[in-house]
Formats: sequence, structure tokens, C-alpha cells
Amino acid sequence: MLEQLKQDVLQANLDLVRHGLVPLTWGNVSGIDRSSGWIVIKPSGVAYGALTPGDMVVVDLQGKTVEGSLRPSSDTPAHLCLYNACPLIGGIAHTHSPYATMFAQSCREIPCLGTTHADQFHGPVPLARFLSEEEVQDDYEANMGRVIVERFRGLDWQSIPGVLLAGHAPFTWGTSAADAVLHAVALERIAHMAFGTLRLNPEAPELPRYILAKHHRRKHGPDAYYGQKKS
Amino acid sequence: MLEQLKQDVLQANLDLVRHGLVPLTWGNVSGIDRSSGWIVIKPSGVAYGALTPGDMVVVDLQGKTVEGSLRPSSDTPAHLCLYNACPLIGGIAHTHSPYATMFAQSCREIPCLGTTHADQFHGPVPLARFLSEEEVQDDYEANMGRVIVERFRGLDWQSIPGVLLAGHAPFTWGTSAADAVLHAVALERIAHMAFGTLRLNPEAPELPRYILAKHHRRKHGPDAYYGQKKS
Amino acid sequence: MLEQLKQDVLQANLDLVRHGLVPLTWGNVSGIDRSSGWIVIKPSGVAYGALTPGDMVVVDLQGKTVEGSLRPSSDTPAHLCLYNACPLIGGIAHTHSPYATMFAQSCREIPCLGTTHADQFHGPVPLARFLSEEEVQDDYEANMGRVIVERFRGLDWQSIPGVLLAGHAPFTWGTSAADAVLHAVALERIAHMAFGTLRLNPEAPELPRYILAKHHRRKHGPDAYYGQKKS
Amino acid sequence: MLEQLKQDVLQANLDLVRHGLVPLTWGNVSGIDRSSGWIVIKPSGVAYGALTPGDMVVVDLQGKTVEGSLRPSSDTPAHLCLYNACPLIGGIAHTHSPYATMFAQSCREIPCLGTTHADQFHGPVPLARFLSEEEVQDDYEANMGRVIVERFRGLDWQSIPGVLLAGHAPFTWGTSAADAVLHAVALERIAHMAFGTLRLNPEAPELPRYILAKHHRRKHGPDAYYGQKKS
Repeated sequence: MLEQLKQDVLQANLDLVRHGLVPLTWGNVSGIDRSSGWIVIKPSGVAYGALTPGDMVVVDLQGKTVEGSLRPSSDTPAHLCLYNACPLIGGIAHTHSPYATMFAQSCREIPCLGTTHADQFHGPVPLARFLSEEEVQDDYEANMGRVIVERFRGLDWQSIPGVLLAGHAPFTWGTSAADAVLHAVALERIAHMAFGTLRLNPEAPELPRYILAKHHRRKHGPDAYYGQKKS
Repeated sequence: MLEQLKQDVLQANLDLVRHGLVPLTWGNVSGIDRSSGWIVIKPSGVAYGALTPGDMVVVDLQGKTVEGSLRPSSDTPAHLCLYNACPLIGGIAHTHSPYATMFAQSCREIPCLGTTHADQFHGPVPLARFLSEEEVQDDYEANMGRVIVERFRGLDWQSIPGVLLAGHAPFTWGTSAADAVLHAVALERIAHMAFGTLRLNPEAPELPRYILAKHHRRKHGPDAYYGQKKS
Repeated sequence: MLEQLKQDVLQANLDLVRHGLVPLTWGNVSGIDRSSGWIVIKPSGVAYGALTPGDMVVVDLQGKTVEGSLRPSSDTPAHLCLYNACPLIGGIAHTHSPYATMFAQSCREIPCLGTTHADQFHGPVPLARFLSEEEVQDDYEANMGRVIVERFRGLDWQSIPGVLLAGHAPFTWGTSAADAVLHAVALERIAHMAFGTLRLNPEAPELPRYILAKHHRRKHGPDAYYGQKKS
Repeated sequence: MLEQLKQDVLQANLDLVRHGLVPLTWGNVSGIDRSSGWIVIKPSGVAYGALTPGDMVVVDLQGKTVEGSLRPSSDTPAHLCLYNACPLIGGIAHTHSPYATMFAQSCREIPCLGTTHADQFHGPVPLARFLSEEEVQDDYEANMGRVIVERFRGLDWQSIPGVLLAGHAPFTWGTSAADAVLHAVALERIAHMAFGTLRLNPEAPELPRYILAKHHRRKHGPDAYYGQKKS
């Protein structure tokens, strides 16, 4: 069941490697079938080169394994928390890509310093706080998701499709697993360029708000004119 | 029609990927046939791996689509503005390559710190200003081109084949689409090396003007002796 | 003899190249067969592309060549010292990977700034001191091993599977040659991210100890739940 | 004639690309046949992918073309100057590799901060001065060679197989074209690691002289024990 979604989720995981975002067995991508409420996710700690669609694990929104003989990614509860919080999310990617992780470890949001950023994130990439000792000891991975949800109160999940978890790394999401990976690729580029911009000019100006708004509208929403018309 | 130019423009777009300057669907290259005044440009938001010569869009110098079923790059009006401003331009490339974009986001020109730079750009790589709110809201992409043209008053388009747009990214140009990509590759290398040079020595000296002039003459103009004689 | 181990050690050496950790003939990996006490190691200064399993050199724990017509890596005495010091070590990797080496040359330990680090190293990556003039002049490579052993007094070789040698570069180890390479890959990523984190925020906080402990337990020890159950 | 040397010089030039040291048509490598005094060098400004052994140009030590229909590299007079100055040089490589060039543009020597450096260069990588206006205007490329020769008065060409030319880029040399490329690869790694080391610790200590001497003796000279015995 969910054969197409398994293929898509497998491909999205392999794309993390192809884009240079993850070495070894790091990182994970999932996708959801909203009609059944079932999620397809990468198994934990298996080499990318060995993955087949049949290795993908199917879990429900409460985290119960529905299909699959392997353990799902240890980060699965964090994914579930985000799927439950925002019904528009169709896929989620988690990497420890270098530059985005540097910002997460530095406990700094990524300011919007240019149109590359504005094309993808409608404002700074937010930082979710460190978990408390209690949150770490009990239900750790679900609590990762909860501090992200907490951080997104008042924010729009669609126009800001990613977050940095303090001392950890980024999560990104989108309408599908592939879209979540696309945002992971873009986030790493944006983080790299913000890193270098701040070295060249610690007082680099944030992009004027009218340009931020323009670039967002150009790609997203009813008046978007970037890309081809969806048929 | 313009089959050779479509092939050349397609190849130039694929070269952006091959040289690592663009991920995803970012970036665009165009080329012009000066006899007809028609421009061939990449369609908007199509994956590089899927592009064929027939996907290239043909527009005239006023931006009217002459041939092609896909939407041209959303940056097309900026390209047109440059083609109209300088009749010697045969091709234009636009990327968000990391180091050049860091300078654009930092609102700093790239000073000429060495002969690598002097071989390609006869002086600093200029910075065009932020667009005003009015310029963004009405005819945005054409106004990108206009602020570049404004910045080049008194400059020579041939000896300085590129520019940084503040808060955005670089544009480069040349005698053909391939030549514009060559300048995009060189600009990214130059920006990377200037970035590192300024870290090692914030007071690094600009290249003496007589070396700048020598390197320019060596590659360009009537006494050039770099490369092979054109037959 | 030890044909499988030779294959494994050869593959581990080639993986150093595949992961971009070593150019030219730099770097070396060894593995030990604890039942015989024999070690398989890369020959000195041979191009990676030309290596065959039969080129691997077999030495005993005192450094005597047991099999092989080529000279073993010049760093062999350092490997032997670590195998003798900790019976749990099954493989050792030595690279001059750029970011880990920057910390070694800077005479700085790598602080634990995030969960990527905590997943692999249970605390800072330690720095072993410069060798004295006497230690360099007599039995140099064995003394490299000895200063590492000296530095690990009171530390756990399993939970901290690597070290930086001041002014030199990293050594990593693991349960096998492949595991040692895995730690070399992780260490280079960790070093890169620590480097950038300290640029963004020289006062970046160390990861809270309860998160460090959690990530270590999650991957290692009796309650580990990362990866698949070993059958 | 010199068919083997042409093959070797072609391969050495292609290795510059393979090691990521040069894009486009940048860089050049030459090799000399000391018995005839003839030098084989890359032609100027030809794409690497198109080069054949027959494209290599043969010149004598005075720069007269002996064989070949293409123009030799515009940097040929600099190569000749070095071959004339040191009869032990068998090959020369010139790149604009990023990190070495950053030091050249910064007008800083590369201090010896670790054993990676000591394995290749017995002391800091020297910096040759800017050329004067007269030296640039008349016989420019030969004068590049002359300021390098001037800088090497009192230095040993064999134990320091490379130099940075202020505001320009590195030259390296060796016993053959392949050996010169090997030093170009090592120099770029060394420069990268020195760059990062100085960011982490601007007061990073130079490698103690007794370790520098040890690493040099270990690889070079009568008591060398790195690599395999030459038969």
C-alpha cells in the first residue's frame, strides 16, 4: 500500500544525499497520505545506498507502525507532531546540513538578507528554544516537535517552511516530501550566504520589507508568476 | 527558428549547473540574435534535467513572446533592459552564486585585489542600488535592469562584464550566452578569493593600476596575446 | 591470510577518498584481528587508485611485518600504541581532514556545541599535546601514540572515539576499520560546524549536559534506540 | 618528439582540473627534458577537455617555439626563468587555486602551522614582491619569474617547492610535471588549513622547529622513510 508515496519518500531521502546535505546515515524525510492519515518515513540508521521502497516504514499519526519490518527514524515523533499541528504539511525533511546547523548551534535566527531568502522564507528563519531537562528525559523526540509548534504560534507554516532547533539542526517542510527537500536545499544555501554576508558586513541591512513582500508574492499565492501555470 | 541559438542557450544554462553555480531551478541565461532582435531565454521554474532546446522561449526586445509554449524566466524584463542598453551584449547570465551574492547582500563592491580579477573585470565589480518601493511595485524586473543601466553610466559594459544588485545577486554578460556564463564562473571565483583575502587582511591593497591595465590589455583589445589567434 | 580483513581495510582506506577526507596518498586506516593480534594497514605512500588487497601489510602488535612486500604506513607505530592501550579498539583512521586539522593546528579542543557532536563524541574532542624534542627525535611515531594515551587517562576510548594531535591532525578509532572511518567523517563535519558556529557566535553555549547525555544514550549502550536492532 | 613528456604534461594539466584547482582555461603546467633543454607546455587559452598531446607546445630555454602550431601559455617566460635558475626543476605548475591565491592577494606568507605543511615545505611558503611599473610594462611574464628568483636567493628550491606572487597566485615546481601538480594540490590544502587556523586562533603557534625538521627528513633526503624504496 502507498507504493507511490514510498517511492516518493525514498527518492526524497536519496535527494538529500545527492544535494550534499547529509553524509553516512544522517537525515530523514517523510511524507503523509492525508486521506488515510498514514506517514511514510525512512528507517533508522540504514545506509542510503541500500534503501529500497519496501524498507520505508508506514506509521499512523499516533506513531504506531502500520507496515514495515524496520524501526522508523528515531526522529519520527517530531515529524508526527508537525503533521498533527499543521494539516497543510505534506512532507518533512530533517538534516544536519552544515551552515543551517551553524546558525542553530549559534542560537541565532537567520535574518532575511536578500531575495534568495525572500523567495523561500517570508521573514527570518525562526529559532526554537533548547528543550528543558524534563522535556529531554521524557518523550524527547515528541518534545522537539512541541517546541517547534510553540515557536510557530502566530507564524504561518506555509510562508515560513522551516525552523532551526537550538543546539540541534534544521527541520523543513512542504506540500510533499520533495517540496520539503527543496526547502532544505534552499535553506542551506541561504544559511551559507547569510553566514558570509555577516562576515563581510556585520551590519548588513535586512532586505527592505517591500522587496521581501514582492518576492514572496511573485512565487506564492494567487498572483504568483514564477514558474509555469499548473494545469 | 534560431535552432543553433536555442542549443547554445540551453547548453549555457546547463553549464551553470555543471559549474556548481545554481541548484534546483535557480538561475537563467539568455542569448540574442542581433539581426532579428530576438532573444532566446530559459523558461521559468523548469528543472534543468528536463530542459530541451524546444523548451527555450523566444521573445522580442519588447518582451513579446515570439515562439514557445512556456513562460519565459520571470527575470526576462531585466535581460531585455540590458540588451536594449548595450548593443554589444550577446548573452546574459543571472545566478545566485554564493560568494558573489554575499557581496551583493553586504552592499559592497568587489575590489580588485589580484590578477584573477584583472583578467576579467577592469576595476571593481560595481554594485547597483536597492530599488525603491515604487520601482518594486510597478514593473519590478524591468526596473532591476534600469538600476543596472543607471549604475553603468560612465562605465564600459565590455571591460566590466558584470554587476551586483544590492540585496539580490549578480548579473553577468558577454559576447554570447557561453561568454556570459564564463564571466559568471569567473565572478564567483573572484568573489570567493576577495572574501578570503579580506578575512586574512582587511587592509589588503588593491592591485596596482599598472598591473590591472596590463592584465586587461593582455586578454582584451588589439594587442591581446592571451589565447589563440582568432582565424 | 586475513583476506576478509584486508578487503575491509582496503575498502576503509578507499572510503577516506570517497568522503573527500584525503587527497593524494595522505591518510591511513588499519584494522586488527584480535584473535591473532595481527594488524592490517595501508602501505606507505602508494596511490589509492592502485591499491589492491594484496598490497595491505600485516604487522604484529610489536610492529614486526608478518606478511607483505611493501613498507607499512610510516604512522604504524602510533596505531600499534593505541591498539595496545585499548583492547576494545578494532580499527584506526588517520587523516589530515581540513577542519579537524585547523583545530589541531590552533591547539583548541572541539567543544560540544550541538547534537551532531553529541551523537558521536560524549564531550569535547580532546587535544593531545605537542611532542617534546626528545620525543620527536627518538621513536617519533610511537611517541605520537603515547601522548594520545597520556591524554586519554581518565577518559573513555569508546565514548570519545577520536583525538586531535597538536600541530598535526586527528586520529579516530572504532570497533572496526569501517567504524573508524565513520568517526573520521563525523569528526570533520563536527569540526566544520564548530568552526562556523564560533565565527557566528564566539560565545556560543556548549550543549546542555542533559542533552549531551541523552544523545549519547540514544545511540550507544544498553538502551540505545537509534538504528536497527543487531541480530 | 618528446612524446612521453607531452603525454605526461597533458596528464599533469588535466590533473589540475581533476583536483579542482582550476576552472575554465585557467592554469598551466610544463615539464622539461633536460638532455635537450626543451620544454613542453600547455597552449594558451584552450579548453582542457579539448587538449591532445599534439596540442602541447615545445619551446627551448630561450622561449623559441621548437614544435607546435598553437601559442604556448602566456606565462611561458616565467616558467623558463625558473628552469634556467634551478637545474633541478623538472616541472612547473601555475594555478589560481582559491586559498593559496587569498594569501598571495593578502601579501602574507603562509606560516608553517602544522605537519601537513612540514611534509611538503620546509618553512613558510614565501611571498615574492609586486612587480614595479617598469617590470610590468616591459617583459612582464619573464619579470614574474625574475622576482621569484630574487625571492629565492638564499632559499633551497627543493625543500621549498613553491611561492606566492603578490597580488597574483602561486607557482609550484618539482622533479616532474606530476610532482609540480602534487605540490600545487598540497599547497592549496595547506593554505586552506592555515586560513582556518588563523581564524580560530590568530596567535596560533608555528610548528616547533624540531618537528618541522623531523617531518622534512622523514620524507626527503638520505634517511627518508616515508613511501616505498625507489628501486
